[in-house]
Amino acid sequence: MPERITLYTAKICPFAQRVEIALHEAKAHHNVEQFQIDLQNKPEWYAPKVNPASKVPAIAYGGPHVPPDQPSPESIKLAESLILVEFVADLFPHSHLLPHDPVKRAQARFFIDGVSTKFIPAWHAFSQGKSSEEDFLTAVEHLQALLPESGFAVGAYSIADVALTPFLGRARVTLKEDLGGYPRGEGPRVLAVLTSGTGRLARFGKYAQDLLARESFQATFDEAYITERYKARFADLRK
Amino acid sequence: MPERITLYTAKICPFAQRVEIALHEAKAHHNVEQFQIDLQNKPEWYAPKVNPASKVPAIAYGGPHVPPDQPSPESIKLAESLILVEFVADLFPHSHLLPHDPVKRAQARFFIDGVSTKFIPAWHAFSQGKSSEEDFLTAVEHLQALLPESGFAVGAYSIADVALTPFLGRARVTLKEDLGGYPRGEGPRVLAVLTSGTGRLARFGKYAQDLLARESFQATFDEAYITERYKARFADLRK
Repeated sequence: MPERITLYTAKICPFAQRVEIALHEAKAHHNVEQFQIDLQNKPEWYAPKVNPASKVPAIAYGGPHVPPDQPSPESIKLAESLILVEFVADLFPHSHLLPHDPVKRAQARFFIDGVSTKFIPAWHAFSQGKSSEEDFLTAVEHLQALLPESGFAVGAYSIADVALTPFLGRARVTLKEDLGGYPRGEGPRVLAVLTSGTGRLARFGKYAQDLLARESFQATFDEAYITERYKARFADLRK
Repeated sequence: MPERITLYTAKICPFAQRVEIALHEAKAHHNVEQFQIDLQNKPEWYAPKVNPASKVPAIAYGGPHVPPDQPSPESIKLAESLILVEFVADLFPHSHLLPHDPVKRAQARFFIDGVSTKFIPAWHAFSQGKSSEEDFLTAVEHLQALLPESGFAVGAYSIADVALTPFLGRARVTLKEDLGGYPRGEGPRVLAVLTSGTGRLARFGKYAQDLLARESFQATFDEAYITERYKARFADLRK
């Protein structure tokens, strides 16, 4: 039986949402204390007492019952989103987030490697206006080529899908609202290429629809909040 | 029972040695066909038929019995050293490379994250003469701070130790031979700081001695070969 879990998170942060999704898939979210960290104004105790890297997400595991803003030195502190997703999958095997088959586990982790080394950097570069649409779509095609004919990244929903979904959700908001450094008016068109399920990204688009329809994503994604924050964040990019 | 495994590897490559060490720990190396890839002159079939990224290590898993230089489309191809180490740990649970406790698994993966994001880049920058000894030692101190009082990274030998050892072995050769871009004559002194088990890196140094004494490392490390290759590779750095 898992011990007490406190999750330090932030609604804006896609890395943190990965862990929220995993906990939701494990139906463990009601038993987890979630504490929002204001990333613009972090509490002074956060780095020394929870995560020396001063990032979210982080988990305090075990130890006595304490208020989350008074973390106990007796709890174990864990960090890094992908590590925490695997931790949740290990703690709650009934979540089935980690495939049983070692080959499928390796394929899930290889998909995640593509998310980390290709999708995320290519999306950031494109949305900041620092690289071409073509470079971004090529990165998406790398992931598309790994997908099976139907279903999620390795068939059943897994850690691979958890790793991508928060970034895809934020990309959808950004493109829908036409925010970012790419030419004005291009956002909705690129969103259609990415998620319509037709054309060169037909398979990926269907997969994207499945990811964004997943209950664990929707329950952990505050679209109105993220839209407002992104409008402010990206406001200067085309000035 | 695991299926047929062909490992594509290269003696020079620390990433590939990770998988060789893991297979050795699992006592599975005798049942694995190892094929050396000449990284300076890769066979034309390697990228299209084994690893599109054209890197080692890679594994062909399952499928019919074929010569390794005629890979079958029926085998599953897997890549990325850390993924392959976890794959070996999953395939051969008796290797005990993956701790049973989810907390220790997370701590092992966090140690690996420090190897990937701190130790390796800091070592490369220092050995190329592009950053200071102090920056390198600070990165090592990050790992040292994660070590328990005795034993390996999370107590018993695990994937965390597998991830670091090949890089440490190559650093030892480089420093011992005084190769690289740092000031001439400094190599042996820095090697003593790193591995003597005294001074500011006392705990790390004892850990390094344990890693380098491990049979699975020694059996998969061709020191004479690597020394000769490194002498050639680093020859121009101080010209």
